[in-house]
Amino acid sequence: WQSTVYSMVVFSATMVVIFWASVFLYTSFYFTFMPQESITWPIHFQFKSCENEPGICSNPNAVIPVLDPMRGSLLVRGQKYRVVVDLEMPESPVNQRIGMFLLNMEMKNQGGGTLRQSSRSAMMRYKSELLHFISTTVFAPLLLYGLQEEKQVVTVELFSQYEEDPLLPLSEVYIELASRHVELYAAQMRIHATFSGLRYFMFHYPLIAAVVGIGICMVFLSAVVILSWYQFSGPTFSPVQP
Amino acid sequence: WQSTVYSMVVFSATMVVIFWASVFLYTSFYFTFMPQESITWPIHFQFKSCENEPGICSNPNAVIPVLDPMRGSLLVRGQKYRVVVDLEMPESPVNQRIGMFLLNMEMKNQGGGTLRQSSRSAMMRYKSELLHFISTTVFAPLLLYGLQEEKQVVTVELFSQYEEDPLLPLSEVYIELASRHVELYAAQMRIHATFSGLRYFMFHYPLIAAVVGIGICMVFLSAVVILSWYQFSGPTFSPVQP
Amino acid sequence: WQSTVYSMVVFSATMVVIFWASVFLYTSFYFTFMPQESITWPIHFQFKSCENEPGICSNPNAVIPVLDPMRGSLLVRGQKYRVVVDLEMPESPVNQRIGMFLLNMEMKNQGGGTLRQSSRSAMMRYKSELLHFISTTVFAPLLLYGLQEEKQVVTVELFSQYEEDPLLPLSEVYIELASRHVELYAAQMRIHATFSGLRYFMFHYPLIAAVVGIGICMVFLSAVVILSWYQFSGPTFSPVQP
Amino acid sequence: WQSTVYSMVVFSATMVVIFWASVFLYTSFYFTFMPQESITWPIHFQFKSCENEPGICSNPNAVIPVLDPMRGSLLVRGQKYRVVVDLEMPESPVNQRIGMFLLNMEMKNQGGGTLRQSSRSAMMRYKSELLHFISTTVFAPLLLYGLQEEKQVVTVELFSQYEEDPLLPLSEVYIELASRHVELYAAQMRIHATFSGLRYFMFHYPLIAAVVGIGICMVFLSAVVILSWYQFSGPTFSPVQP
Repeated sequence: WQSTVYSMVVFSATMVVIFWASVFLYTSFYFTFMPQESITWPIHFQFKSCENEPGICSNPNAVIPVLDPMRGSLLVRGQKYRVVVDLEMPESPVNQRIGMFLLNMEMKNQGGGTLRQSSRSAMMRYKSELLHFISTTVFAPLLLYGLQEEKQVVTVELFSQYEEDPLLPLSEVYIELASRHVELYAAQMRIHATFSGLRYFMFHYPLIAAVVGIGICMVFLSAVVILSWYQFSGPTFSPVQP
Repeated sequence: WQSTVYSMVVFSATMVVIFWASVFLYTSFYFTFMPQESITWPIHFQFKSCENEPGICSNPNAVIPVLDPMRGSLLVRGQKYRVVVDLEMPESPVNQRIGMFLLNMEMKNQGGGTLRQSSRSAMMRYKSELLHFISTTVFAPLLLYGLQEEKQVVTVELFSQYEEDPLLPLSEVYIELASRHVELYAAQMRIHATFSGLRYFMFHYPLIAAVVGIGICMVFLSAVVILSWYQFSGPTFSPVQP
Repeated sequence: WQSTVYSMVVFSATMVVIFWASVFLYTSFYFTFMPQESITWPIHFQFKSCENEPGICSNPNAVIPVLDPMRGSLLVRGQKYRVVVDLEMPESPVNQRIGMFLLNMEMKNQGGGTLRQSSRSAMMRYKSELLHFISTTVFAPLLLYGLQEEKQVVTVELFSQYEEDPLLPLSEVYIELASRHVELYAAQMRIHATFSGLRYFMFHYPLIAAVVGIGICMVFLSAVVILSWYQFSGPTFSPVQP
Repeated sequence: WQSTVYSMVVFSATMVVIFWASVFLYTSFYFTFMPQESITWPIHFQFKSCENEPGICSNPNAVIPVLDPMRGSLLVRGQKYRVVVDLEMPESPVNQRIGMFLLNMEMKNQGGGTLRQSSRSAMMRYKSELLHFISTTVFAPLLLYGLQEEKQVVTVELFSQYEEDPLLPLSEVYIELASRHVELYAAQMRIHATFSGLRYFMFHYPLIAAVVGIGICMVFLSAVVILSWYQFSGPTFSPVQP
């Protein structure tokens, strides 16, 4: 009877060890295998102000260094990325008058060579004067207390499937707004990894993926433990059998 | 009696095999014979912004590569296609003032030669101020919560019956908006296959077509099986007959 | 008695054959004799957009090829046709301001020579502001759900009795809107055959015409059958009579 | 019994002394270890007025000496700072018309060499005329009594992570507004230490940090007292034990 208790204790302890080892294995696999889902950089546009009149006299442009000084490229090889720019624009008459404008982006490598470039048109959403009147009066309390603002966030997708060439890693991004009659509060660039296959499953169903992954690890570890247990303790128990 | 059971089992198994073989045959025929019904490309218009004033100073144009790098032409020979462009336009005063505008499309082959060209006029739907007032006040809640927008989708049919010449496959499509006083949120090109005959039947009545197609396959396969069964088992049973 | 039954069977079978032959004869006569009542072509107007302002800077015009590549001319000789153009025009201020405008049409033959030309004035129906207010508020639900639209279809008859000259068949139609301050959603050209005499009767009273036509055919065919029956069977039955 | 009272008095007095010593130790540690959280300097812009017209004819700029004459650099080594400029701008038509403008900052060392420079675009928040009307009428009482003003404070972050190089201490800051069509009531520069680790904890949870810190000090001091008490009084009490 004592040997039964003893073996149960050994069994439980082994299971606990295997479980935590599986959790550790899966977690380390997760963080090794999964790239960062999204990275965001603020865009600080530079331009020249006009000499003799208000307003700006050159197209706003910005250079964003995307190379991490310690880790090198932030993009994972073989992973497709969506590159998006968010422009925070006031609903001012100036912005309403420009209509469509182009946003140019150039991906540059270390030496300054252009890897890929893209040019997309963007535009603020139109709001008729009547709708503006209605929305301003309806949302007046929020507007007065600053919880809402008369601005729009214009999101422009520059690349839908950007994949890095491992030989020419992306070093900096050059962004230009091809209109100088534009007003911006702020801007940011976002890079989103578009997961597919196993990564998609692991990102969108983390719980199920964790259960499955830890389960697989436990099965393998148990198999290893049982095999090694038979290997070592088998000969000692064999004289009992006959 | 045992032989009856045996032959029934054989018969059922044969029928099941014939049925699944028919399903497989019909499915593979369906996907080989039916071209993709519609393909959609986003149109990213390019233009030059004006130097000294807001707005754009060149006609917006775009080039869409429609050649799949792996499969070659996406269009099936002998199939007629409808080429359509959707323009997502805000109901802004700028768009209302332009009235009619032309949309030009050129189908180009690999070498850049123009295969066919088309030019169609388009126009936003007119909405009187009174109707605009009524619709804005009626739909105000939807408009305020962004479920509806003050925009129109203008659909322009450029080609109603485009058929590809196998010797000069379509490589890229050049699209030009022949007006520079236009505002667009987004645009897309759609190519729809206009099915006729058997394809029309298989696309619009897929269930009936599947039942009929699988039935025909089963009849043929059964005939083959019965014939081959007589051919091989006939001689063995012949001594029983006399 | 057996011979009576025999002759009745023969008689019935003969009548059925004669009836179906008459139906076939009439039908084929109908489709040979009656030209297509109406043919419709979409009109795709072409124009030049202005450089420095919104709107169009040339009169919209269009060329419609009306020659069928396989059957040649679609118009039947000796038949008079009505040529009509439908203009789908929004009730916009631009269209209301133009008042009357001319629509020119030139019928051209293969070599480009003008066969006939016509010029007709057209105008949108006037709607006072009061009527517009009343109709918009009354029909607001239909207008909001897109079942009705603020547009008019202006129908212009360019030729009331166009008859083709067999030596100079119509090849293409040139249409020009002699005003560039016009806004069109779409346009189409219709050619209607104006039937007279027998064709008028057959087109407008198809049932009576069919009954009469089939009856006439049956009478003729019966006469032919009776005559031929007498001719051939008369000698064989003659020995029974005496 | 007397000795019990005596030892309790001694114990209490010792505890009080230890407590106050701990408070003193923690407080002095706090003020030594924690850099000043934020330092504020007013910015006094300098510019040239135009000769022949109202307004200013040079970009406003200012130099702020940030070196304390007694303590040297005000910035702590190894600490990251956020450098922010607040511009107090009236909501005047002049300011609304300029749109975006650049604010340049140069960090200079003793010899006048530029350590780092930064250039950020700023812009007043847009307020439509309707919202301006509503807010003015709603806040009229406050505006009339001068509790609120028609102005905005535009906050521009020039550096988000400024870290001082100990060899080249920051001596003065040069600030320039790269537009001369701007109106300012006042401006100030703020430098905020961005705490991390222990400093973050001590700054954001001062009470808990104080309790923990004083507790740790008391434990250490008590240990020292007990040890020294055993050390010195041990030999005198030892003859009592046997």
